[in-house]
Amino acid sequence: MSTRPLWDKGQAALDAAAQEFCAGDDVVLDRRLILHDIRASIAHVHGLQRIDVLAAAEAEALVNGLGELAEAVRAGSFVLDERFEDGHSAIEWYLSERLGDVGRKVHTGRSRNDQVLVAMRLWLKDALADLRARCLDCADACLRRAETTRDVALPGYTHLQRAVPSSLAALLAGHAEAFLDDAETARATAGTLDSSPLGTAAGYGVNLPLDRDGVARELGFSRVQVSPIYAQNSRGKLELLAVQALHQALLDVRRLAWDLSLYSTAEFAFVRLPDAYTTGSSIMPNKRNPDVVELLRAVPSVTEGAMSELSSLLSLPSGYHRDLQATKAPVLRAFTRGLAGLALVPALVHTLELDVARMAAAIDPELYATDRAVELARAGVPFRDAYRQAAAEMHDLKDRSPAESLAARVSLGGPGNLGLDRLRARLDALR
Amino acid sequence: MSTRPLWDKGQAALDAAAQEFCAGDDVVLDRRLILHDIRASIAHVHGLQRIDVLAAAEAEALVNGLGELAEAVRAGSFVLDERFEDGHSAIEWYLSERLGDVGRKVHTGRSRNDQVLVAMRLWLKDALADLRARCLDCADACLRRAETTRDVALPGYTHLQRAVPSSLAALLAGHAEAFLDDAETARATAGTLDSSPLGTAAGYGVNLPLDRDGVARELGFSRVQVSPIYAQNSRGKLELLAVQALHQALLDVRRLAWDLSLYSTAEFAFVRLPDAYTTGSSIMPNKRNPDVVELLRAVPSVTEGAMSELSSLLSLPSGYHRDLQATKAPVLRAFTRGLAGLALVPALVHTLELDVARMAAAIDPELYATDRAVELARAGVPFRDAYRQAAAEMHDLKDRSPAESLAARVSLGGPGNLGLDRLRARLDALR
Amino acid sequence: MSTRPLWDKGQAALDAAAQEFCAGDDVVLDRRLILHDIRASIAHVHGLQRIDVLAAAEAEALVNGLGELAEAVRAGSFVLDERFEDGHSAIEWYLSERLGDVGRKVHTGRSRNDQVLVAMRLWLKDALADLRARCLDCADACLRRAETTRDVALPGYTHLQRAVPSSLAALLAGHAEAFLDDAETARATAGTLDSSPLGTAAGYGVNLPLDRDGVARELGFSRVQVSPIYAQNSRGKLELLAVQALHQALLDVRRLAWDLSLYSTAEFAFVRLPDAYTTGSSIMPNKRNPDVVELLRAVPSVTEGAMSELSSLLSLPSGYHRDLQATKAPVLRAFTRGLAGLALVPALVHTLELDVARMAAAIDPELYATDRAVELARAGVPFRDAYRQAAAEMHDLKDRSPAESLAARVSLGGPGNLGLDRLRARLDALR
Amino acid sequence: MSTRPLWDKGQAALDAAAQEFCAGDDVVLDRRLILHDIRASIAHVHGLQRIDVLAAAEAEALVNGLGELAEAVRAGSFVLDERFEDGHSAIEWYLSERLGDVGRKVHTGRSRNDQVLVAMRLWLKDALADLRARCLDCADACLRRAETTRDVALPGYTHLQRAVPSSLAALLAGHAEAFLDDAETARATAGTLDSSPLGTAAGYGVNLPLDRDGVARELGFSRVQVSPIYAQNSRGKLELLAVQALHQALLDVRRLAWDLSLYSTAEFAFVRLPDAYTTGSSIMPNKRNPDVVELLRAVPSVTEGAMSELSSLLSLPSGYHRDLQATKAPVLRAFTRGLAGLALVPALVHTLELDVARMAAAIDPELYATDRAVELARAGVPFRDAYRQAAAEMHDLKDRSPAESLAARVSLGGPGNLGLDRLRARLDALR
Repeated sequence: MSTRPLWDKGQAALDAAAQEFCAGDDVVLDRRLILHDIRASIAHVHGLQRIDVLAAAEAEALVNGLGELAEAVRAGSFVLDERFEDGHSAIEWYLSERLGDVGRKVHTGRSRNDQVLVAMRLWLKDALADLRARCLDCADACLRRAETTRDVALPGYTHLQRAVPSSLAALLAGHAEAFLDDAETARATAGTLDSSPLGTAAGYGVNLPLDRDGVARELGFSRVQVSPIYAQNSRGKLELLAVQALHQALLDVRRLAWDLSLYSTAEFAFVRLPDAYTTGSSIMPNKRNPDVVELLRAVPSVTEGAMSELSSLLSLPSGYHRDLQATKAPVLRAFTRGLAGLALVPALVHTLELDVARMAAAIDPELYATDRAVELARAGVPFRDAYRQAAAEMHDLKDRSPAESLAARVSLGGPGNLGLDRLRARLDALR
Repeated sequence: MSTRPLWDKGQAALDAAAQEFCAGDDVVLDRRLILHDIRASIAHVHGLQRIDVLAAAEAEALVNGLGELAEAVRAGSFVLDERFEDGHSAIEWYLSERLGDVGRKVHTGRSRNDQVLVAMRLWLKDALADLRARCLDCADACLRRAETTRDVALPGYTHLQRAVPSSLAALLAGHAEAFLDDAETARATAGTLDSSPLGTAAGYGVNLPLDRDGVARELGFSRVQVSPIYAQNSRGKLELLAVQALHQALLDVRRLAWDLSLYSTAEFAFVRLPDAYTTGSSIMPNKRNPDVVELLRAVPSVTEGAMSELSSLLSLPSGYHRDLQATKAPVLRAFTRGLAGLALVPALVHTLELDVARMAAAIDPELYATDRAVELARAGVPFRDAYRQAAAEMHDLKDRSPAESLAARVSLGGPGNLGLDRLRARLDALR
Repeated sequence: MSTRPLWDKGQAALDAAAQEFCAGDDVVLDRRLILHDIRASIAHVHGLQRIDVLAAAEAEALVNGLGELAEAVRAGSFVLDERFEDGHSAIEWYLSERLGDVGRKVHTGRSRNDQVLVAMRLWLKDALADLRARCLDCADACLRRAETTRDVALPGYTHLQRAVPSSLAALLAGHAEAFLDDAETARATAGTLDSSPLGTAAGYGVNLPLDRDGVARELGFSRVQVSPIYAQNSRGKLELLAVQALHQALLDVRRLAWDLSLYSTAEFAFVRLPDAYTTGSSIMPNKRNPDVVELLRAVPSVTEGAMSELSSLLSLPSGYHRDLQATKAPVLRAFTRGLAGLALVPALVHTLELDVARMAAAIDPELYATDRAVELARAGVPFRDAYRQAAAEMHDLKDRSPAESLAARVSLGGPGNLGLDRLRARLDALR
Repeated sequence: MSTRPLWDKGQAALDAAAQEFCAGDDVVLDRRLILHDIRASIAHVHGLQRIDVLAAAEAEALVNGLGELAEAVRAGSFVLDERFEDGHSAIEWYLSERLGDVGRKVHTGRSRNDQVLVAMRLWLKDALADLRARCLDCADACLRRAETTRDVALPGYTHLQRAVPSSLAALLAGHAEAFLDDAETARATAGTLDSSPLGTAAGYGVNLPLDRDGVARELGFSRVQVSPIYAQNSRGKLELLAVQALHQALLDVRRLAWDLSLYSTAEFAFVRLPDAYTTGSSIMPNKRNPDVVELLRAVPSVTEGAMSELSSLLSLPSGYHRDLQATKAPVLRAFTRGLAGLALVPALVHTLELDVARMAAAIDPELYATDRAVELARAGVPFRDAYRQAAAEMHDLKDRSPAESLAARVSLGGPGNLGLDRLRARLDALR
């Protein structure tokens, strides 16, 4: 770090190893947050101007400076690196270099504590909006493919054992509805996070009449996070809530990936992964490997790790503690990897090659036994007796067809009545 | 297990050790769910009657039988024990004993798979409603105590170091707002879970025109979980979502417990825990120990464990697998312990004894330095210079008073403008 | 709780809800520990006698009383229930009832803090010895079955794709070696835990010349845990270490269970699970389900949950805190479930029915491509070129046989040189 | 990636987004492993030479090439970057560029699967040796400081409440013994990992008579990991075991950090952290913050996250799956951060400034009550009565001194008999 820290008062320097340990990857992580930090800084300047802590010309200079810095960051001409303690210091340094005394006024009425809170909160709102959109894209891809595969029969499995006839569309509809729940969770989570911590300083407010409501509105928050102490205490907790929402979606990706991993084995061979999603082996010339699918299956490990990492930090009394800095890395890591994984799903679903004949061939006659038991029950045989009778008559079921079996399952959601329109309507409502 | 399993077809018995391993604590756990299971069974019977699978008299007999069983469970005259494979088997056994053939009709059109799903879903909706109510009680207790302690000055801490003057009310308002967020999360989570899985059978629907919408309405669900496959795939996932909501609240209990643990040490001595919440030592006659507070601090460990336990199960292809039975124990364990912990918080907050003088005495003059720096900044000194000037003048701050410092922090949420009315309004909206 | 707590000094009672919350399941959990607690109490009494704190007659009376209590516990005539605060209180209460004043001397020179530590330490040593024995039983079962299945060819899979010819024996040898590592980990962990905490009181020693070395020897510990503060600080940490050892073994059970789950599908159909390890469906008459295997796959979720639960408690300053009481439940839960799971593995491995013809039929000619590439490489073709040449020549491989391919893989551990004797020798050394 | 993948056979390219997703941070992570990979490659070449698959001149050329590459990596003139799929590809590319056909022979008889396994195994052995050394350094620092602070009295706390007189040396001895256990765990873990996976190819051996024992010896392994399938199956599992060992040590760092965090508050004020380990605030001129200590307290969150992340990946059938690639990042992250944290502890312990007077002043007279109860018990009063009598006489204890109380606690490990020599002897044995 070659610039002086913001808290420099001329005292002895931090031990070099300790300083490196404290810095960690902070500046690298802050590269992800600096544009949100700048955006919040602009709103803060506007707020200070409204309460006459900054003159109009000062505010304009600061806002322009912040805009230039954002431009430089986007263009790559300003790089946040080890010269700085963190992104916050870099912003103040840039403005001071550009504007002198006026630059040093930007930090009036705020602390790095509320500054990082607001930057992360804005970042998370964006990330949760992305999460919602990607879940909806996944749901949409599954629904579209389901609409064209209603007649593709497939065994329905329980315990990985063939159980009853089902259809590919029924499976895809199941994945679609999962992603709809995930989109709803993402939206609800974004709602809980939609409060502005800016103006809470280091957790105890500040002796200025800050226009917190106005600043929150300018930044697009639906409410103010009222308590400065809670603003601090919510650090890590709300990040955890966001990662939990992401984890829900990734668990559904994992399940879909498992289906594809299994169905693309030589033994099942129901689907073939397109070449664009498989790789080879360095030693076995004959192999085509479903690496993409496997790495999708792996991706919830990142959220699960991040959740444990965050929870592990949250055994502290009220107020800020430096421990909370360590909440940044797992959140950024989880969303980066998780959103990248989700983004691959739609194309994978679209391009999957099907072996319809193999799927149909896997429907053994005994899979109709449940249909038979229910028919008997409907005709008045107590179900438990019907069950035993059907078990005894399994050899009589070989003339049934998958199409007939699917068509008869007409309860909402069943293969004969998939309810794709309901799912589509919910998808539209969640957009 | 002395009754025959529902799936008995006369085959060889399960190995004894294997059977004990499979049963686990299942019947004991199902004691928690059986009333919800009965409630759903009644709605299922009504649904079967509406589609003429059951005659009116049959339905009436079944509903009456189910009502009697519920009564017997509540009265303790029917105990779910090792005679049964699980609660579902017990219900069918009871009805068959009471009603003969009619009793054996209750399982028509359903599987234990959707039966356990709907029982757990109903249980979780109740648990989440409890969670919301208890979070609001905690918030209410904090707000009430905050209203009467606005003038109680207390150091504000960062890094556990005295930082700036604050107030007890500011701290309590922080805890209140935390619990409000938790109540909101509980409500949102209940919304995501508010879908009826009943009528999806073993994950592939059933060849009957079940009235799924009507059954869902009777059970108070706001929508049907459309896809039978997703109904299965959501097992464990939605339980995890519910435990995540609980974990959020318990993390806030942990933080409050840490504050009380710290503030009740001889060194801080800001609060004294009432006798009703402390215990003694078996060897040290002089001790009075804050066991309740410490066990409250411990309680998120149960949710954290449960979340890991649930996630660990969720790496499976689509469809039911027996692994998913293992989702039951962690969910029940987490809510039982977590809700019990939350229930203790309001009385603890109400009865806490304060040492107002010690709190005030802990506000050293140098805690006014930030006030001074901001005043200089407001007068036009660039903040970074103001900061250094205030650092140099700390000896001049000894005539300031906490009251004056608190009153000047008027930004919304600050000690001079706590915004308790906003928090109260949000609480009322969340009831 | 109807007996007076040990720390009773006549003060106000604990709030009822708080008391129930504090008690938790403690007495129920202590049923698992009380025999170890009694064993340690006997050694403690002997130690007190050696330093003349107890007269010979007093010691004899106490030891006899403790022996009677152990007998009563084993016989079920003494039940640890809600009358008692915990197992420690019950022991002291029993001795006082039986022996009057002498009974009340048993607690001289110890605290419940070191009492629970030593009971749990002894319990864990037994549990780890069990763990080691069961891992070795699993390894033994796999090795025995491997010895008789050397000629059973089976595709070797990578990415769940058929890769090269392998053998069932090679797979079983793999599982065997895994369990050998686990046995070694269990042994090493038991070594780390093999220190006596008794005589450390509440974490600060006691003003008596306790014969800690002698007591440790009597209890079979290889060393004394020297520091009383570390004795306290190690609570939860060493439990975690033990559960981690268990988790290693259960991860290997999970992998084996996955293999069986997959290989017993209709699609693979390499193995058939014996009837004694499968169950039926309540709705589908045709199903035979591998519940045992699936619940074995689920079992590491319990250890994973327990590890998170324990870690979550371990963010505390030095010394005892009541939070640490919450370490008991996850440890007991994890070992109970985990050891039960491990105990099922050997019989499952022994009784597995094989479909040798299906396994052989799954070895497609292209699985010989790697053999071919290596042969070319051995003949001097650079491996990368050999690899491409073999890829181009896959159609020429159809005359090869699995037996030939397996026999040629003679590097230690390969199917042609399994090294079962080395594994057997290591097993013997670990007994 | 601009070089061709090793598995290139002229087929269609991977989808660009999928390729980026698959690559992840792999080449960056492999920078940490490449020197170990080269070391193992050299042993592999020697082994191939011994079985005449490579001529002496070929082997020499390859070994020289590998040596040059290692030199270039160390010097920074060869950078592993996005040109390569991974470190393994880079090594083969480099040798092929340098040596043509001979370079392409290096991969004979191995797969990337055993190549990454052996590189990671070697890396972990080094990391565990570092872990052991750093734990011993921590123990040594605590013991040294304990030797010079035997007379520094300090209250012993339970439940964060003052309990009995203790000493700083007793506390430091507790931390020392903790780190000794951790060093033992590191050593035992290294023992379990001390087996060579090289020569197992992709999990099914290879049709060459590889000298696996000789290669293992050259690399310093104490044994061969016999089963190729277990070599694959152990991926992630043994990494998890290593991180678990690290976690044990970091939990002890966390506890020490908590002690320092608490003792350096204004309220306790027993210690002062040297300037070299504290930082300032950007808004509060008066603050000096214990950031280093807090980040040390945070550091087990990284191992806890890594452990969950690893466990989450380990629900798979036997054999390699690409999911396992995701084991690399958490392991490297955990050891990097964890070892850096451990490295800071000794200097922190050495340079801590003490306020001996404040420590002594915190020993209230009632802290002698336990001494008194034990004295009464020693004189023949039943302990439970002695306990109540001492509780009643607490006012009579004010003439006692800490020194006297400490001196009387002579059981091994107590403040009057710390047993530092035993701990030192164990430390020496663990070096």
